[in-house]
Amino acid sequence: MNLPLSPDRLWDRLMELAKIGPIPGGGNNRPALSALDGEARALLKRWGEEIGLAVTVDRLGNMALRREGRDPGRKPVLVGSHLDTQPSGGKFDGPYGVLAGLEILHALHESGLVTEAPIILVNWTSEEGCRFSPSMIGAAGAMGVLSEAEVLDRRALDDGERYGDALKATGWDGAAEPTALQDAVAYFEAHIEQGPVLEAEGYDLGIVTGGYATERALVTVTGETSHAGTTPMEMRRDAVLAAAEMIAAGEAILYRIAPEGRMTVCRFMADPGADGVVPGGARFAFEYRHPADEVLARLLSEADAAMTGIALRRQVEVKREPYWSFPAVVFDEALAGRLREAADRHGASHRDMLSGAGHDAYHAAARMPAVMLFIPCHGGISHHPSESISREWAEKGLRVLADAVIATANSEEQ
Amino acid sequence: MNLPLSPDRLWDRLMELAKIGPIPGGGNNRPALSALDGEARALLKRWGEEIGLAVTVDRLGNMALRREGRDPGRKPVLVGSHLDTQPSGGKFDGPYGVLAGLEILHALHESGLVTEAPIILVNWTSEEGCRFSPSMIGAAGAMGVLSEAEVLDRRALDDGERYGDALKATGWDGAAEPTALQDAVAYFEAHIEQGPVLEAEGYDLGIVTGGYATERALVTVTGETSHAGTTPMEMRRDAVLAAAEMIAAGEAILYRIAPEGRMTVCRFMADPGADGVVPGGARFAFEYRHPADEVLARLLSEADAAMTGIALRRQVEVKREPYWSFPAVVFDEALAGRLREAADRHGASHRDMLSGAGHDAYHAAARMPAVMLFIPCHGGISHHPSESISREWAEKGLRVLADAVIATANSEEQ
Repeated sequence: MNLPLSPDRLWDRLMELAKIGPIPGGGNNRPALSALDGEARALLKRWGEEIGLAVTVDRLGNMALRREGRDPGRKPVLVGSHLDTQPSGGKFDGPYGVLAGLEILHALHESGLVTEAPIILVNWTSEEGCRFSPSMIGAAGAMGVLSEAEVLDRRALDDGERYGDALKATGWDGAAEPTALQDAVAYFEAHIEQGPVLEAEGYDLGIVTGGYATERALVTVTGETSHAGTTPMEMRRDAVLAAAEMIAAGEAILYRIAPEGRMTVCRFMADPGADGVVPGGARFAFEYRHPADEVLARLLSEADAAMTGIALRRQVEVKREPYWSFPAVVFDEALAGRLREAADRHGASHRDMLSGAGHDAYHAAARMPAVMLFIPCHGGISHHPSESISREWAEKGLRVLADAVIATANSEEQ
Repeated sequence: MNLPLSPDRLWDRLMELAKIGPIPGGGNNRPALSALDGEARALLKRWGEEIGLAVTVDRLGNMALRREGRDPGRKPVLVGSHLDTQPSGGKFDGPYGVLAGLEILHALHESGLVTEAPIILVNWTSEEGCRFSPSMIGAAGAMGVLSEAEVLDRRALDDGERYGDALKATGWDGAAEPTALQDAVAYFEAHIEQGPVLEAEGYDLGIVTGGYATERALVTVTGETSHAGTTPMEMRRDAVLAAAEMIAAGEAILYRIAPEGRMTVCRFMADPGADGVVPGGARFAFEYRHPADEVLARLLSEADAAMTGIALRRQVEVKREPYWSFPAVVFDEALAGRLREAADRHGASHRDMLSGAGHDAYHAAARMPAVMLFIPCHGGISHHPSESISREWAEKGLRVLADAVIATANSEEQ
């Protein structure tokens, strides 16, 4: 197939989109369900309509840009990602996957080629989850992981605005049934890696075969506040010293059981946090990630035992309350195989890998065969204005994605 | 000597003073150089003038309430403490020492007894150091640890107001020479222990023979921020995991070298402290205290070596910057002996101890023989509205302090 893909047009569109909500340093602040998000949606809609795509919006704001196939009986192939960004986001996290999908449809349009099955480009609502927690909420609603009402009633973390009201205010509250997107044969998502592995190891592409099981919890340690000068060590119930030992123990458990997993303590607060006061309280976020659900469970169980032992010995109380977790995700091996074949065909070096971050594809994978394709990003940096990719990576990702999407839309195995 | 000391009058005055700047829970918020501090000073001045004391105020705001002695050639004996409180302070931290001193002078006044040397009751300015760092700044200025200009030019931590301007605004900027208070033969300070030892061990009084050498530093760990999902452990430079190990190492060093010392990490901040982000920065307050300067130095040196090693291994940078420190203080053994004798005479059980907290007496000790007397406080709680003492402890402290102060003012060893 000789598809007239234009990597330049993809690049130009990435730069054009980045003019909406620019921030110093070359990044973007384009939060979901904001006026800027609305501008980005309007631009995508215009680009889609210019090449004859039928644009619909569902009741959760998810946009579907559909190109019909030859066979009216075939279910569609989905390709997509998201246009919203973190407050201090870059130009590529999300938009790359959407605009690469758009470029595939644009090239099909120009060539006049018609695939067997329809192809739908999807822009999911509020992937980043900055104002409306959890992240990937639009995809969760469409894929039935959350109910439509749960999504619409979600409140903004900052001012409590209702998701449904914010959506209506942007004018992007559509009429389509969100769960209709479940009725598809495959979901493809291209994305920047957001990690350093591909670049460090010199690969052009990552074939993403699954995602990590994750559990993030708030650990609260409660001891007793006292005077830092006058209280002998043996009479203290210092929550921060206990917390430090718990964190060190958690790290040792990871390295002993599963060094391929991940542990992060992204927050730490001492209470009262005042000079001269032995802190009676400590709170920290404690997170493990691992490719296997059962290993994650074992890590957490050993960490709980260790923390309980430390708390007993130090006469403090400890409580671990998970607030963000999801099980391991396994992507579709047949779709991954199509990506590998395409990569080989285009001379793109590739390796299989797991996604450490969450993506809309996780929810799609609950309803249909799904897969992701990673392109490298410089230094693994994302969620930052300096997030960057090379035009060569963008092109290789585009060509490989196009081949696999079109092969799937033309496959006889549907 | 049969001095008509009135423990009831002392108690009533403590309660009367506590009406100035009351806060819920029975405590006080009476910051130094505030209007409330001015009210407390006015009350002390009135009480002093009612019993014939000559009240002067120096250029740093320190109040001196003088009762003349029989011998005009004798240098005065100082007794004092402070009337300012922490924002969430109690009724006794500071006021007990001032009002116990006042009660001694009141009883002398009523009895008509005249000591050989003059006695000066001192109310030091801004002992707590809540707005004007460091704490004990008024005493530091008077005793020449800081220059007068350094004190007057100090800026408030909250709004940058100049100490000298805040003092003038209260109307308590006096004309007396601050360093004149150096010209004395002894300094006595009674204070609540602010720790749990006396009550826990069943002692009525603590004879304070010295204070801990202390160094508090801000430790800054700088690694690299990255994505908590996508960055493998071996590619991370996680500042919080490094900081937790450093804190655990610091604690182990204390227990190995000097378990009688103290270690506190009163503050801990993760940067950026955002969900899903490997923290590239961590800052924590790291403090050791020990009775001996040389042991403190060894603790710090070993901690520095450990932190440097951890930082090297984890590829982060570490910087320890002391921001509050003072050497060990040794109080006067002869004065301590007078307190012990008085305690024995009054049937008050007592033990020698070191002060873990800083006190105005530390600066006085740089210029003259000085000593402190601790009374217990319930549960060791201070800097809290629930700070409390028993009337019996207040009385025993008063009687013993009175004996030792008067014995010193009458001593022939001057």
